[in-house]
Amino acid sequence: MKDFELDRLRNRIEHELFERVLPFWLTYSHDSVHGGHFNNIDHNGAIYDTTKHIWMQARLVWMFSKLYRKVEPRTDWLSSAKIGMDFLIKHAICPDKRVFFSVTSDGKPIYQQRKIFSECFYALALSEYGRAIDHQPYIKEAQCMVEQIWEWAFDLTQIGRPMYEGNPPTQMLAIPMMLLNLIDEVMIEVDCTSEITECFERISDHVHGKYTLEYVSLEGEPLEGSNGRLVNPGHVIEAGWFIQHVADQVLQPAMEDLAREMIRNAQSHGWDQEYGGLYYFLDVEGFSPVQLEWSMKLWWPHCEALYAHLLNYARTSDPNDLASFRKVDHYIQKHFVDQEYGEWFGYCDREGRVTHRFKGGPYKGCFHVPRSLWLCWDLLQNWPYFDDSI
Amino acid sequence: MKDFELDRLRNRIEHELFERVLPFWLTYSHDSVHGGHFNNIDHNGAIYDTTKHIWMQARLVWMFSKLYRKVEPRTDWLSSAKIGMDFLIKHAICPDKRVFFSVTSDGKPIYQQRKIFSECFYALALSEYGRAIDHQPYIKEAQCMVEQIWEWAFDLTQIGRPMYEGNPPTQMLAIPMMLLNLIDEVMIEVDCTSEITECFERISDHVHGKYTLEYVSLEGEPLEGSNGRLVNPGHVIEAGWFIQHVADQVLQPAMEDLAREMIRNAQSHGWDQEYGGLYYFLDVEGFSPVQLEWSMKLWWPHCEALYAHLLNYARTSDPNDLASFRKVDHYIQKHFVDQEYGEWFGYCDREGRVTHRFKGGPYKGCFHVPRSLWLCWDLLQNWPYFDDSI
Repeated sequence: MKDFELDRLRNRIEHELFERVLPFWLTYSHDSVHGGHFNNIDHNGAIYDTTKHIWMQARLVWMFSKLYRKVEPRTDWLSSAKIGMDFLIKHAICPDKRVFFSVTSDGKPIYQQRKIFSECFYALALSEYGRAIDHQPYIKEAQCMVEQIWEWAFDLTQIGRPMYEGNPPTQMLAIPMMLLNLIDEVMIEVDCTSEITECFERISDHVHGKYTLEYVSLEGEPLEGSNGRLVNPGHVIEAGWFIQHVADQVLQPAMEDLAREMIRNAQSHGWDQEYGGLYYFLDVEGFSPVQLEWSMKLWWPHCEALYAHLLNYARTSDPNDLASFRKVDHYIQKHFVDQEYGEWFGYCDREGRVTHRFKGGPYKGCFHVPRSLWLCWDLLQNWPYFDDSI
Repeated sequence: MKDFELDRLRNRIEHELFERVLPFWLTYSHDSVHGGHFNNIDHNGAIYDTTKHIWMQARLVWMFSKLYRKVEPRTDWLSSAKIGMDFLIKHAICPDKRVFFSVTSDGKPIYQQRKIFSECFYALALSEYGRAIDHQPYIKEAQCMVEQIWEWAFDLTQIGRPMYEGNPPTQMLAIPMMLLNLIDEVMIEVDCTSEITECFERISDHVHGKYTLEYVSLEGEPLEGSNGRLVNPGHVIEAGWFIQHVADQVLQPAMEDLAREMIRNAQSHGWDQEYGGLYYFLDVEGFSPVQLEWSMKLWWPHCEALYAHLLNYARTSDPNDLASFRKVDHYIQKHFVDQEYGEWFGYCDREGRVTHRFKGGPYKGCFHVPRSLWLCWDLLQNWPYFDDSI
């Protein structure tokens, strides 16, 4: 990328992040009555459901704490994080020490999943907020949570998920991928060499040729049936950059190479050749995935891909990575960006038409868009290559 | 409808049901190794996943038993029902007397829902198969199951569904609707006047003006938030004809009128004015439903609508009902019918393009298509009006 292109790109991303995405959440999410943040927010900022989804609450806290610590100590960012963290501490923890999935606007529990992700995002929030305000007890508590999550992660029967004879334990890509992110974010002061290596081995189990399968057997073999053939390109691409963020710590350049190939392959077979955009799910043998939304184009795989391709390019100067970045960037500009109210739409049909007008929902909050933009912006600020051959 | 039109329609439906839909299941579903039926069947009959979903297994048994008893005592139909029933009896019942949601091809349990629908479809299968072979113990056992289901239906905590402070009990349209169908199908010899009346009252609680809401409070009031504004037009239309099938038993003509209005209103606001077809979900205040598939067009609401409009027309001679029937029929012919291999596709995007090529999946089996065609055909065989004013 030529210097002027790099500058132009960085400026555009900077404007999008700081002038159009973050203000949306700062303006509309705060619940001035009960504290915390709303996350079910319509295209224009209207609250269409006051349920507070804990993943979203925690991710917003993580995001603003991170920006406060890494970009600029802005009081409005820290205040927004504090509002969310106070609400989480008061209302998100179950009596059994687990974390609820959703609560009412005034904090009454609605639902608890038999999964570990509410706990993961709570730990991310607590750690990053603790670092933002330099409060060691929060950091330590988050680290204890990560240790507990590690215990649960490979045997979900401990958190109430039933196990039946016809459904033997399998490996899910989401688990080691999430654990890597927790290690990278929360366990900074702790030596996690063996845990990182274990996650790398587990993720490698999912890689079968050009496909990274969402589910494999405990031995890393493909499984029968629809689940066994399932690929989630967004997950694969996200795992690809998570790996690269921690691979330095364990001196595993081969794993970095594998991560780059995972990203490139997922981009290649995950991209819709007819209408553009990354599919949400694919079946590696070409059957229709049973998920009704398989062919939809969601914002978050595109957020992950935007950063992952730029990271690949920054590390390797491979012009194909830059081309992938530009392809994803173009798709995002054309389909997800909302010029009117800021933030991005989250859901398009296969042809790229927006199907859901809201900016925030049960699974979309102040997270993937600003995280991706911040990571890209940060990488461009510290760009390692000044290669004008493209 | 003129006589010749009626004949032509009946002949077309007869051909579709007996020559193109039922043969698909008879040809491809039988598992000759482990017994029972596969339900994950690709467009051309290929099995793409050997998981046996109990809803589908039981619905197929119900369908072939019903046709054997009501249409013609064909041995291939009874044999197909027997194969499924034997598998269900052997493999579908949990140790706690509940019914699994899915099992492996050889019957090992995979998953159990914290819902009552597996039990409902099992009872439907057992009752109808019992009637087909005139085996009273099966009928009695099915009736006992319905009594048990009734006990669970209004307090799902009894079957392990957790209840939290922020999520107080609500009424779900699916419950009284399903119970009405069970009463109609299974409790033939039992006086259920009070139960039918209770179901009518509960369903009436969901009707708010032209909208029949999927969830309401115990007092029948609309709820806050996305769930409180949710309409599932297919459910409303299905409930509409379930009500009409039992209303005779309790002499409630007003309820029949309400049922017809529910169907007509759901058709009116559930129909996509731009691309045609019934939406899967709607938000009555025009927000985007949070379900990713809300704007998709699924086969089953169209199956329900096809029969419900014909039933309305048979009972009232209202030309608008005939127009609605024709509109739905036309949409089905254009989008769901597969001229190549028989049966219908199940899933289209908003614009009506097939998104999933399979004919059978975890939630689509030998049920909605043949049930709707059989009900329409049976109604046309016994057509009450000979009105040639249209």
